[in-house]
Amino acid sequence: MNSQTNATEQARQWLASFDEILTSGEPERAADLFEQNGYWRDLVAMTWNLKTLEGRQAIRHMIHQTAPHIQPGNWQLSEPATEQDGVVEAWLTFETRDARGKGHLRLRDGQAWTLLTTMQELKDFPEKRKFRRPKGAQHGASKTRQTWLEARQQEERELGYSQQPYCVIIGGGQGGIGLAARLRQLDVPTIVVERNPTPGDSWRNRYKSLCLHDPVWYDHMPYLPFPDHWPVFAPKDKIGDWLEMYTKVMELNYWSSTECLGARYDEQNGEWAVEVIRDGQPVTLRPKQLVLATGMSGIPNIPDIPGMDSFEGEQHHSSRHPGAEAYRGKKCVVLGANNSAHDICAALWENDADVTMIQRSPTHIIKSDTLMERVLGGLYSEEAVANGMTTEKADLTFASIPFRIMPEFHIPVYQQVAEQDADFYQRLRDAGFMLDFGDDGSGLFMKYLRRGSGYYIDVGASELVAQGEIKLKSRTSIARINPRSVTLTDGSELPADLIVYATGFGSMNGWAARIISQDVADKVGKCWGMGSDTTKDPGPWEGELRNMWKPTQQDALWFHGGNLHQSRHYSLYLALQLKARQEGLDTPVYGLQEVHHLA
Amino acid sequence: MNSQTNATEQARQWLASFDEILTSGEPERAADLFEQNGYWRDLVAMTWNLKTLEGRQAIRHMIHQTAPHIQPGNWQLSEPATEQDGVVEAWLTFETRDARGKGHLRLRDGQAWTLLTTMQELKDFPEKRKFRRPKGAQHGASKTRQTWLEARQQEERELGYSQQPYCVIIGGGQGGIGLAARLRQLDVPTIVVERNPTPGDSWRNRYKSLCLHDPVWYDHMPYLPFPDHWPVFAPKDKIGDWLEMYTKVMELNYWSSTECLGARYDEQNGEWAVEVIRDGQPVTLRPKQLVLATGMSGIPNIPDIPGMDSFEGEQHHSSRHPGAEAYRGKKCVVLGANNSAHDICAALWENDADVTMIQRSPTHIIKSDTLMERVLGGLYSEEAVANGMTTEKADLTFASIPFRIMPEFHIPVYQQVAEQDADFYQRLRDAGFMLDFGDDGSGLFMKYLRRGSGYYIDVGASELVAQGEIKLKSRTSIARINPRSVTLTDGSELPADLIVYATGFGSMNGWAARIISQDVADKVGKCWGMGSDTTKDPGPWEGELRNMWKPTQQDALWFHGGNLHQSRHYSLYLALQLKARQEGLDTPVYGLQEVHHLA
Repeated sequence: MNSQTNATEQARQWLASFDEILTSGEPERAADLFEQNGYWRDLVAMTWNLKTLEGRQAIRHMIHQTAPHIQPGNWQLSEPATEQDGVVEAWLTFETRDARGKGHLRLRDGQAWTLLTTMQELKDFPEKRKFRRPKGAQHGASKTRQTWLEARQQEERELGYSQQPYCVIIGGGQGGIGLAARLRQLDVPTIVVERNPTPGDSWRNRYKSLCLHDPVWYDHMPYLPFPDHWPVFAPKDKIGDWLEMYTKVMELNYWSSTECLGARYDEQNGEWAVEVIRDGQPVTLRPKQLVLATGMSGIPNIPDIPGMDSFEGEQHHSSRHPGAEAYRGKKCVVLGANNSAHDICAALWENDADVTMIQRSPTHIIKSDTLMERVLGGLYSEEAVANGMTTEKADLTFASIPFRIMPEFHIPVYQQVAEQDADFYQRLRDAGFMLDFGDDGSGLFMKYLRRGSGYYIDVGASELVAQGEIKLKSRTSIARINPRSVTLTDGSELPADLIVYATGFGSMNGWAARIISQDVADKVGKCWGMGSDTTKDPGPWEGELRNMWKPTQQDALWFHGGNLHQSRHYSLYLALQLKARQEGLDTPVYGLQEVHHLA
Repeated sequence: MNSQTNATEQARQWLASFDEILTSGEPERAADLFEQNGYWRDLVAMTWNLKTLEGRQAIRHMIHQTAPHIQPGNWQLSEPATEQDGVVEAWLTFETRDARGKGHLRLRDGQAWTLLTTMQELKDFPEKRKFRRPKGAQHGASKTRQTWLEARQQEERELGYSQQPYCVIIGGGQGGIGLAARLRQLDVPTIVVERNPTPGDSWRNRYKSLCLHDPVWYDHMPYLPFPDHWPVFAPKDKIGDWLEMYTKVMELNYWSSTECLGARYDEQNGEWAVEVIRDGQPVTLRPKQLVLATGMSGIPNIPDIPGMDSFEGEQHHSSRHPGAEAYRGKKCVVLGANNSAHDICAALWENDADVTMIQRSPTHIIKSDTLMERVLGGLYSEEAVANGMTTEKADLTFASIPFRIMPEFHIPVYQQVAEQDADFYQRLRDAGFMLDFGDDGSGLFMKYLRRGSGYYIDVGASELVAQGEIKLKSRTSIARINPRSVTLTDGSELPADLIVYATGFGSMNGWAARIISQDVADKVGKCWGMGSDTTKDPGPWEGELRNMWKPTQQDALWFHGGNLHQSRHYSLYLALQLKARQEGLDTPVYGLQEVHHLA
């Protein structure tokens, strides 16, 4: 028996036992098929939640609570299993009472180390794709025929006025657009509210040299992948155009030039009242579900620095930075040393401004090429595609690693990164730059998941810092702002025509405070972070991102966001949760997260 | 040795012999590896032409003339061969001096029955796709950086004014758009000239119930296939939106609201002067190559009927028909009984008009579902996709059958069709409808290739004809038009508020006459048709469609068009021919077609 046959047989036997026990009178005994410290990560399929169960006891509890009504079964390998370094990996499919799912299993010595289960479609409400695609033409003749265009125009005319959407999404960036596309395919009437005039403007409005920092294979939108000639790192305006056309061909009800004034939830009727101004006219939308897709980054953090009001130059948050062209020859101070700070400093330098970056705390830096080569390439690259890796499989592979043990996977990779680019890092240190690789050396992605900040994917600015072309003041901050200068905490003074606050963003629930109420924001609590008890990610351990893509403590309020990869992948699970509620399916949430931090 | 191994071995041996002889001192001896009446269809790879060589002698002549400079070699199977009913089929790759190609081979008793060779890319000018895709971001910092948007805007500003395009395409429907996309990927500066204001308007402007009559799998555009939820038969406005977004995301230089006044060729300078009015301003474009993509159907045929001028109702050609809504309760006469006539009659009936169809000659009718099931399904269907059939492979399979023997493949299929739908056809005959299956019973596609007319893909109108809901006058025509009626050749009179001339289109070279000159139109001769000596396709036998996608008797003048399938597939070969000329490659045309018919 060769290794693959053996691996497949092991996986098949495990699944058979798992299936048998889950359908027995004591399904919770299936927990014994896991390692003592094994993991079961479930995306909606068992828990109607995003939940990682850690250890047999937690798994046993979850099964006990869910299996009787979820009724998981028909566990099948979807392809031959593989084995490497004593770990058997297998792809699988399964069903529950209401849904079909896909999953991934890692076995060690015949016991499950990790199990991922994901809901993929609701049995009674499958998407109309491939064999189920609509016919389009209504063959035959009919005197009451309505054309596609007439139906679409009628919907645009009525939805939000004489017909209420089931769901309103505030925010029409890539997150809101991708989710709305999924809801459209699931026949969930949805309106996206966006204050910019054209889809894609959230990208177009940013500084002109911006390109995606993640590569194309990682960035596909749902349903409509970028074509083969799409740039590896797409320029912002090209992404803007793509989102604009995507919104149109996916037939989204996208209310542009529309501002959301506020929303309140009527607990009695289970309905939101969302007040918007559309093209100058007030409209009240009454959806059953409200999704905030206002950017995972939340509301800009603008520091309160003595003397700000006295400044005679220009000052703005990085998110409002109009691009570098206007600052040729000017003295520019950028407070912060993460992604936006680096991008803005480099663009200012390119436009012959005099630029100083003020670094208050260490930053993780990784060269873009190294990130591709060492970190993303296995799942998201042209090589991966050539080896048969699909976007779906890459996403599920990524999702299959529980957050608790993800650092173990990343730490050795970043040790290699540090070694490979040792010269580069040394030159940055020599320039005075404070570097880190995260509290535990686990690098970029863990930092992103834990705090959504603290890093720069280097596409060229670091070289300018190392060479002193971008001037650096590190281990300091701005103590006071004067009419034409800033005074640093080390007592030195920098002349300034422009101050950019590249000081990051608050938690997404700041949007709930602004749009709904502080009470609701507090009830929901902090978004993002996993409770890793590392810098800016306080515990206790949650094991999943707080409040993202899953039920919150506020009925019918959801948060959606993240990078293009996350928006693509998690929008599926959020869309299925919304569809199930629209159809009145029973959706008992297992293990609703508790609130430990207000923001 | 099982059948596949045996087939593969046969194909490999044949290719090895072929390769050896082609690179010997007497390459034309390779013709002896073909059956006496074997076929070699070449799309650009050997001949810089679209050419089918029929029989050993023709093949020998072609090889003798081309092999020494084309230098074909490195013939390889690209996957295991298959065998069915004594025919071995194999997919292959090869190279020439300047290009890489793909091909398809059918062997019978060890000799080639059919060989298809197609050019796929120029070695020195490959498209920048997949591993060659652009990086997008220019990593590193530079004080002379130009963003993607700036470069794109500069191009839009300069091309056609301070910079001349290499190629101008007249006509921005799906044909012009698809070709322009290919030329963009090949870095051939191109402008598409289109009189409508928005890409897709050529579809939007047609009658409102129009849907594609071909199914989605057959209709993909190059590079950007329709997503999985796209309707089987897409409504016209949805296709319009798709073309609009396609034009934008493929970054085409699309001059909408631009009218072409005329073009003349300067033989001395090898340059066209194309006079256009763009947004009201005259502009002279000076491209090296001119492509007419004005619709394969050419200029509308409007019959000259006594009394036309006296008609007090409305009369127009089917291509100008605005839709049925305005004719509720009106008496409508539609002259013609092909696709447009049926669609327009059905829409008029749906709008409670009183409709009479006048059928002058027999029409081939095939039910849309039967067409899918019996004819297209093997290559273009969800089942085919599920079985691993790609669009490219389907197109090449289709292309692998020489036109001379294509009827043999189709006749038995249409015999099954006639049998399967016998009741349907009988009811049509009972209603007086004149039916045919083409002169030789080879059905729809042969009729399309031979004459581009004479058929209706039934999506419902035939039932209305059979039931008498659409009134039918067959074996007659309009003899005279009166102020409020028409008099038929059988002497009967029909009251009429509307007359629609669904009387088809002239040859595409009518556009050359209108845009360039009658001399050039005559020099080029009739477009379309293969010289099959069947109705409306006079001989002599040409073996390829006249003038389409290949060199014409007029230097630097090209015709592009056809249905979505043809536009997609043949735009590749036309684009490669244009690119090779732009780069100054040697492109000796073998067997330039002669002109036998002026229109």
